Amino acid sequence: MIRKLLIANRGEIAVRIIRACREMGIEAVAVYSEADKDSLHTQLADEAVCIGPGASAKSYLNMESIISAAIISGADAIHPGFGFLSENARFAQICEQCNLIFVGPPSQVIQNLGNKQIARNTMEAAGVPVIPGTTEAILDVQTGAREADRIGYPVIIKAALGGGGKGMRTAFSPEEFELAFLTAQKESQIAFGDGTMYIEHFVEHPRHIEFQILADSQGNVVHLGERDCSIQRNHQKMIEESPSMAVSEELRNQMGMAAVKAAKAAHYVNAGTIEFLLEKTGKFYFMEMNTRIQVEHPVTEWVTGLDLVKEQLKIASGQPLSFSQKDIQIQGHAIECRINAENPWKNFRPSPGTITDLHLPGGQGIRVDTGIYSGYQIPPYYDSMLAKLIVHGNNREEAIAKMKSALGEVIIQGVDTNVDYQFEIMNDPDYQKGIFDIGFLESHQIGGVKVNEA
Amino acid sequence: MIRKLLIANRGEIAVRIIRACREMGIEAVAVYSEADKDSLHTQLADEAVCIGPGASAKSYLNMESIISAAIISGADAIHPGFGFLSENARFAQICEQCNLIFVGPPSQVIQNLGNKQIARNTMEAAGVPVIPGTTEAILDVQTGAREADRIGYPVIIKAALGGGGKGMRTAFSPEEFELAFLTAQKESQIAFGDGTMYIEHFVEHPRHIEFQILADSQGNVVHLGERDCSIQRNHQKMIEESPSMAVSEELRNQMGMAAVKAAKAAHYVNAGTIEFLLEKTGKFYFMEMNTRIQVEHPVTEWVTGLDLVKEQLKIASGQPLSFSQKDIQIQGHAIECRINAENPWKNFRPSPGTITDLHLPGGQGIRVDTGIYSGYQIPPYYDSMLAKLIVHGNNREEAIAKMKSALGEVIIQGVDTNVDYQFEIMNDPDYQKGIFDIGFLESHQIGGVKVNEA
Repeated sequence: MIRKLLIANRGEIAVRIIRACREMGIEAVAVYSEADKDSLHTQLADEAVCIGPGASAKSYLNMESIISAAIISGADAIHPGFGFLSENARFAQICEQCNLIFVGPPSQVIQNLGNKQIARNTMEAAGVPVIPGTTEAILDVQTGAREADRIGYPVIIKAALGGGGKGMRTAFSPEEFELAFLTAQKESQIAFGDGTMYIEHFVEHPRHIEFQILADSQGNVVHLGERDCSIQRNHQKMIEESPSMAVSEELRNQMGMAAVKAAKAAHYVNAGTIEFLLEKTGKFYFMEMNTRIQVEHPVTEWVTGLDLVKEQLKIASGQPLSFSQKDIQIQGHAIECRINAENPWKNFRPSPGTITDLHLPGGQGIRVDTGIYSGYQIPPYYDSMLAKLIVHGNNREEAIAKMKSALGEVIIQGVDTNVDYQFEIMNDPDYQKGIFDIGFLESHQIGGVKVNEA
Repeated sequence: MIRKLLIANRGEIAVRIIRACREMGIEAVAVYSEADKDSLHTQLADEAVCIGPGASAKSYLNMESIISAAIISGADAIHPGFGFLSENARFAQICEQCNLIFVGPPSQVIQNLGNKQIARNTMEAAGVPVIPGTTEAILDVQTGAREADRIGYPVIIKAALGGGGKGMRTAFSPEEFELAFLTAQKESQIAFGDGTMYIEHFVEHPRHIEFQILADSQGNVVHLGERDCSIQRNHQKMIEESPSMAVSEELRNQMGMAAVKAAKAAHYVNAGTIEFLLEKTGKFYFMEMNTRIQVEHPVTEWVTGLDLVKEQLKIASGQPLSFSQKDIQIQGHAIECRINAENPWKNFRPSPGTITDLHLPGGQGIRVDTGIYSGYQIPPYYDSMLAKLIVHGNNREEAIAKMKSALGEVIIQGVDTNVDYQFEIMNDPDYQKGIFDIGFLESHQIGGVKVNEA
């Protein structure tokens, strides 16, 4: 078993990992930037090592400092948390070379899954559904139309060299194809001096549905059901829940089996997440695999009863999973709201500062994961997430009622937060009915807030 | 369904009940004493009514004020919480007379179960095992001594109207009897205004095992398994857990069936607790039935997945239970530590004052129920419990590890607490092995603290 773990992260996830260490009898080494000297994770760990100035590039992204801290403190493993170096194949490789257990998959797996083309090819070869698209350059409208028929409408036509929405058009039927293709190609030629086009199926109003998997180093892989993370702003998740209203038992089995297949095809080890786009039709497509613990892992923990960070540490220590697929049962309904220091009514402007007063909710079915405390000064260097509020009820209705009650109790003074905005989402009739897709915040103007597509 | 509920209590249990109301869409009316003007329960409720000065007798025990507050605020129901008026049959009766739903059993049931003699006779007649004891009221020491000889030493002398350890003494031999009886009787007269005593065989080194039951007004009764509340000081519970290490599946069924039988024999309605003494031999004896929600209800909530306060409110509204005995499953292991403002190293001296800094733990498997906040002034009038820390793990070992980790995170500054003492208990090898009885704190001198029997 891992004896001493360095946590190459900060904030609530560092605290979360330290707690797992304490419960497992593993010594926890925190690293911290100069700006995080008084952070909770720095105070809670058994040891804490300063790894540089506030700016991430000089501290939490500074591989040399982190590896040195691990070696000097005598740690035998590194947990990267999420963000920062967590999906950096080079960092995982250095850990391997330094005989430090990296709590995550092998570096080669991270590298392969981080490359969209390799990942797509791997999944396609394994029979995991990917978004149908052209495999060769399309230069003329006739070939394009044939390909569009094969792929299935609606389709999106993209400039091969494109970006920023230029040279991109959607066609919902064969009648629309010619004009859309020619317009996109013309735009592409003007913008990029190139008319090479790429066509793929356009997934309309999808949900973001991701499957948590656990894979041990003996080759056992299980999935822990899905998380619905459709409530997003600029591809940043804001609310996550499990199970999803859009996933029937049958679909869960189908998607879960695809997720397990994906993990096996990638030779995956440790906790990972397969992100899918789910169409209203029930068709789903592989988007990408995240090779780390996710922010939203607590919703899965609550409906499965598992502790995912402990499972990560056991897997990294070489232990086989102590359960199989049939032991996994989804119980009740869990929702997570990310509490950010930002003002939704001022275009989500981040709000660093000092927390002058803090009161967080508790009680039955309430979980708060946070790294803040009363008097805590939020450094301007890092992301704006202050806390995760997670609730569990016997069903979705109860979970929403619980979340509303809990959000109503939150007091965070000294900085602006999105607590009231989250409350408004919980109050929205469509959200309550479970009628939403990834465009929800754009289409609903929650609390009068206009969210523009990125 | 209840529309507007007055909560005739304070502190964490008032907060707990307000949360259930919010989640169920019931309006919550708080009552508060002048000393509790800034209390959390006063702030969280939809309405708050001042019912008198700080001293309990003038506020939380002041029936007239509370009933007036209910009528003036238009409440249709009263939840008494625990302590205060929660087991006062007269109060329940006044509620009934005023057409206010009392969230608890009918007043007659409270009265019968509050009278130890009637309760005992009811249980004996129903075939629930009782401790050999007197069958008639004992008013003088001579009659008492004769009865003690008949029953067999050791004996315990109890106030007929007693509870919470008051008016209770043990005599191990005839020589000890007179002093014990007179002391207990005097205490009873002071505490309950009544000198009627009851004597029974003293069960040596028992565990305190209690069964939670739920009974609806249609006559359905289920039990929710046991709580082991053996870690006590002066009959005040300090740590509670579910399930108990001393209760096998077979014994759980036996005791659970006895608990259901007891509730049915008493014509019980709502949530209640049957307290048993469990001998090492596996023999168990009915002690008393508590006709209210218990401090330690969260451990049962966590292992069963039920919300007991919501169940109380549904039952009080006339709804039948939505589950039957076979639906109840005990999952994992839950432990509760009561965090008190008291100094174990100074004979558990209460420590009122102002909480200058507060940090409570969170994360996976951690629940905190509390009415305090940073800056809160603890009034000197009420009991010393500040918070309940409840953890849940997949097994007892994990739950203990979690409790140790969570206790280690607690910061309560400005007053003394028993947090370190609780931590020492969690660290005790006998506690960890589950080897304990109600004399544990007396026999173990945890943290060097001598606990004397009351």
